[in-house]
Amino acid sequence: MNLAGLKRFAPVAVLGATIALSLTAIGQVQDSSRARMLDRMIAQGLTDCGAYRFLAELTRCAPHRLSGSRGADSAIAFAKAAMEECGFTRVHLEPVMVPHWERGPVESAQAVTGKKKSVPLSVCALGGSVATPPGGVIAPVLEVHSLDELTRMGEAAKGKIVFYDRPMDAAKLRTFEAYSGAVDQRSRGPSEAAKAGALAVLVRSMTLALDDVPHTGALDYAANVKKIPAAAISTKGAELLSALLKDSKDVRVHLTLTCRELPDAPSSNVVGDIVGTEKPNDIIVVSGHLDAWDKGQGAMDDGAGCVQALEALNLIRKMNLAPLRTIRAVLFINEENGLRGGRAYPLDPRRSSEHHVAMIESDAGGFAPRGFGVAGDSLVLAHVTRWKYLLDVLGAGLLTPGRGAADISPMIRTGVPGLALDVEDQRYFDYHHSDKDTIEKVNPRELELGAIAEAILAYQIAQEGL
Amino acid sequence: MNLAGLKRFAPVAVLGATIALSLTAIGQVQDSSRARMLDRMIAQGLTDCGAYRFLAELTRCAPHRLSGSRGADSAIAFAKAAMEECGFTRVHLEPVMVPHWERGPVESAQAVTGKKKSVPLSVCALGGSVATPPGGVIAPVLEVHSLDELTRMGEAAKGKIVFYDRPMDAAKLRTFEAYSGAVDQRSRGPSEAAKAGALAVLVRSMTLALDDVPHTGALDYAANVKKIPAAAISTKGAELLSALLKDSKDVRVHLTLTCRELPDAPSSNVVGDIVGTEKPNDIIVVSGHLDAWDKGQGAMDDGAGCVQALEALNLIRKMNLAPLRTIRAVLFINEENGLRGGRAYPLDPRRSSEHHVAMIESDAGGFAPRGFGVAGDSLVLAHVTRWKYLLDVLGAGLLTPGRGAADISPMIRTGVPGLALDVEDQRYFDYHHSDKDTIEKVNPRELELGAIAEAILAYQIAQEGL
Repeated sequence: MNLAGLKRFAPVAVLGATIALSLTAIGQVQDSSRARMLDRMIAQGLTDCGAYRFLAELTRCAPHRLSGSRGADSAIAFAKAAMEECGFTRVHLEPVMVPHWERGPVESAQAVTGKKKSVPLSVCALGGSVATPPGGVIAPVLEVHSLDELTRMGEAAKGKIVFYDRPMDAAKLRTFEAYSGAVDQRSRGPSEAAKAGALAVLVRSMTLALDDVPHTGALDYAANVKKIPAAAISTKGAELLSALLKDSKDVRVHLTLTCRELPDAPSSNVVGDIVGTEKPNDIIVVSGHLDAWDKGQGAMDDGAGCVQALEALNLIRKMNLAPLRTIRAVLFINEENGLRGGRAYPLDPRRSSEHHVAMIESDAGGFAPRGFGVAGDSLVLAHVTRWKYLLDVLGAGLLTPGRGAADISPMIRTGVPGLALDVEDQRYFDYHHSDKDTIEKVNPRELELGAIAEAILAYQIAQEGL
Repeated sequence: MNLAGLKRFAPVAVLGATIALSLTAIGQVQDSSRARMLDRMIAQGLTDCGAYRFLAELTRCAPHRLSGSRGADSAIAFAKAAMEECGFTRVHLEPVMVPHWERGPVESAQAVTGKKKSVPLSVCALGGSVATPPGGVIAPVLEVHSLDELTRMGEAAKGKIVFYDRPMDAAKLRTFEAYSGAVDQRSRGPSEAAKAGALAVLVRSMTLALDDVPHTGALDYAANVKKIPAAAISTKGAELLSALLKDSKDVRVHLTLTCRELPDAPSSNVVGDIVGTEKPNDIIVVSGHLDAWDKGQGAMDDGAGCVQALEALNLIRKMNLAPLRTIRAVLFINEENGLRGGRAYPLDPRRSSEHHVAMIESDAGGFAPRGFGVAGDSLVLAHVTRWKYLLDVLGAGLLTPGRGAADISPMIRTGVPGLALDVEDQRYFDYHHSDKDTIEKVNPRELELGAIAEAILAYQIAQEGL
């Protein structure tokens, strides 16, 4: 129904009916104007593919941007400049100290069999690992498939390299579920192995792809447990090593890692606003994390989320929309190995005068959007469904209860509703935390559709609250 | 609810209520058993990734398989052998004569500017094009953006090479819509240019990607119009040529094509069944087309659809399901340049004793499934929604009115409901009909999910009719 239709309803006699009809009509007019805005935003977004342009620039100027690195500084400078160039206001950095770990120049492994044959294995240090002694660790290998199995083995791990070889479960429909089901080997595996007397750890890479590319990621050393070196091994390397171990009991692995932990470094979250015209201190955040592992370019994880946040605000600005509440882009630092950015955000003094209405984050790769995982009390998901019909146009209308995303979790714990962009994620772990996470894996239109979904949702929340 | 629960409801006193409750309970038991079957099929399918294994074999043994070629014969032999090895029954070929066009060894174009500078342009013959004279065509270029614009130019095309340069409209949300909006330049453009006195045609490639890869595809010469040579030019080549034409009026293009049309060749559709236990002559078809353009490997178009049909039946067989009606895989020949396979299927003498309940086809690439486009009378779509809750699990529950797909369209016109697998298609035209359509663009899990969606749908129709 259009405005002409609204007029025709005005002379209806009974007052209650008139009001009811008018309200319905106004609702329809609103819906119709929202739908037209969405149409325009889709056309503008897909024509510009602005998110991809930002991503090209980010991955060019800061392909490696692990917290504390010079690349991270470049990424922060890029993000601040991009926000300023796009005309965001109140653009600023919020300082935070971050861990500073470096991979070092050498990471290598060879399997040495009884016949003195040496077989190279494709490995990379897990994030946060200590180095091996300068000459490396040479030791026999104990293959296990779970932390429980290691425990059951008792003394068997003593003096050995523990090799965790449980694959992600391909039978799982959702790849994130398959990841969650295997990642304890990487996070807790090193300290569990140390407790059992192991000298070092190899962990089968967290991916469903079978290839020769190792995938890094954070390990989590337990307090008061000796830190032992830990590396990811490619899935093909894992298959090879497992086969060698079946062939012969006399297999040793020679593992060399030169990584190191440096003192904490100064860094910052990057923040920019489109200030709300009526409620400037009511904030809707759109976010991603600016740090990335030092493998590949972090194009999917989480370059995509960062540039989608930039693009969501930029689209709103380019379309001359004037949100009633403030829409803010936050590019967090240090999601990968510390979450210091996400933890610092609620504590920044600026927060005291702000009211956060919702936090949106994209951190699942720049694939076609599917919906949002919604974290909040029992009414939040129900309220978000008001805009499902708009998100459905983008294929992003699947609204499910969710846990939000890592960077926004500290704010969610304070009671702010969190919305995590869900995407078509079957390919995600093919690239995740590895040299394969590069920009050519990202489709400009899929990336843009995620930015549009975030822009629509942020704008509707800005107009109507949540 | 399980069967134990059903028993508990039996003693209810009032007869009507008992019946109603029992029917509800039976319905719930059915739903629950269907859901369990789906779970098992997902686990089996994603563990095997059988569709991808078929695709690896097809693209290895028949990477080029345009109708009439030796590659097409290899593909047919592969498909028949695969069906037999998988234990399909009544496996057979249904003969059909197909066009036989060959690209020839040379296809090249250079822009020659006034300064005698020659700039190479990346081109390939459109499917079905005639060759240029042996030395090629050298002529000035007329750039137009639509057939209408060409008509308005009157005599201007005479003696020239007409260059159709309207891009696919990036603003369109659905890439197939953007394709449909531009493809008249390729299909009808050559004959319209010939009518205007042109010597040859260049058509901007049908893709949203900006790169140097030309995309072929069928042209449609009008009857009684001189056939002139026609080639696709890469999008970067089109941008370059357009820029040269803006710089200087004195730009000629030298186009050489050595393609040729040979006599029609014998070929066949490949058909294999899982015979229904109760209604063997009631048929549900799952299909794709086996022919592909002679660029790339036809991995997406339509190797994906073919291997999904093989895998859908193979999954049903491996799970020891015994459908009540027959589920049939049909791999059609000659979708790309003639539709002879699709047209022959309804006419085969075997059809006289068969009743086709539904035709399913996948021909939009092996991407993650989104749903099905449903062609049929006004009740078909409503009836298919019975199984939406199962398809939703796969992300494939978007059921929309549709036109089916090319190969199954002749059967749809006889009144058989048609179901076309819809996928996440943003990347499709990046690869379509070009050297980029190779197997590494296909994700094994996304491909498999499409096969599972087809298997579930075919099996439900086999059990309950449509």
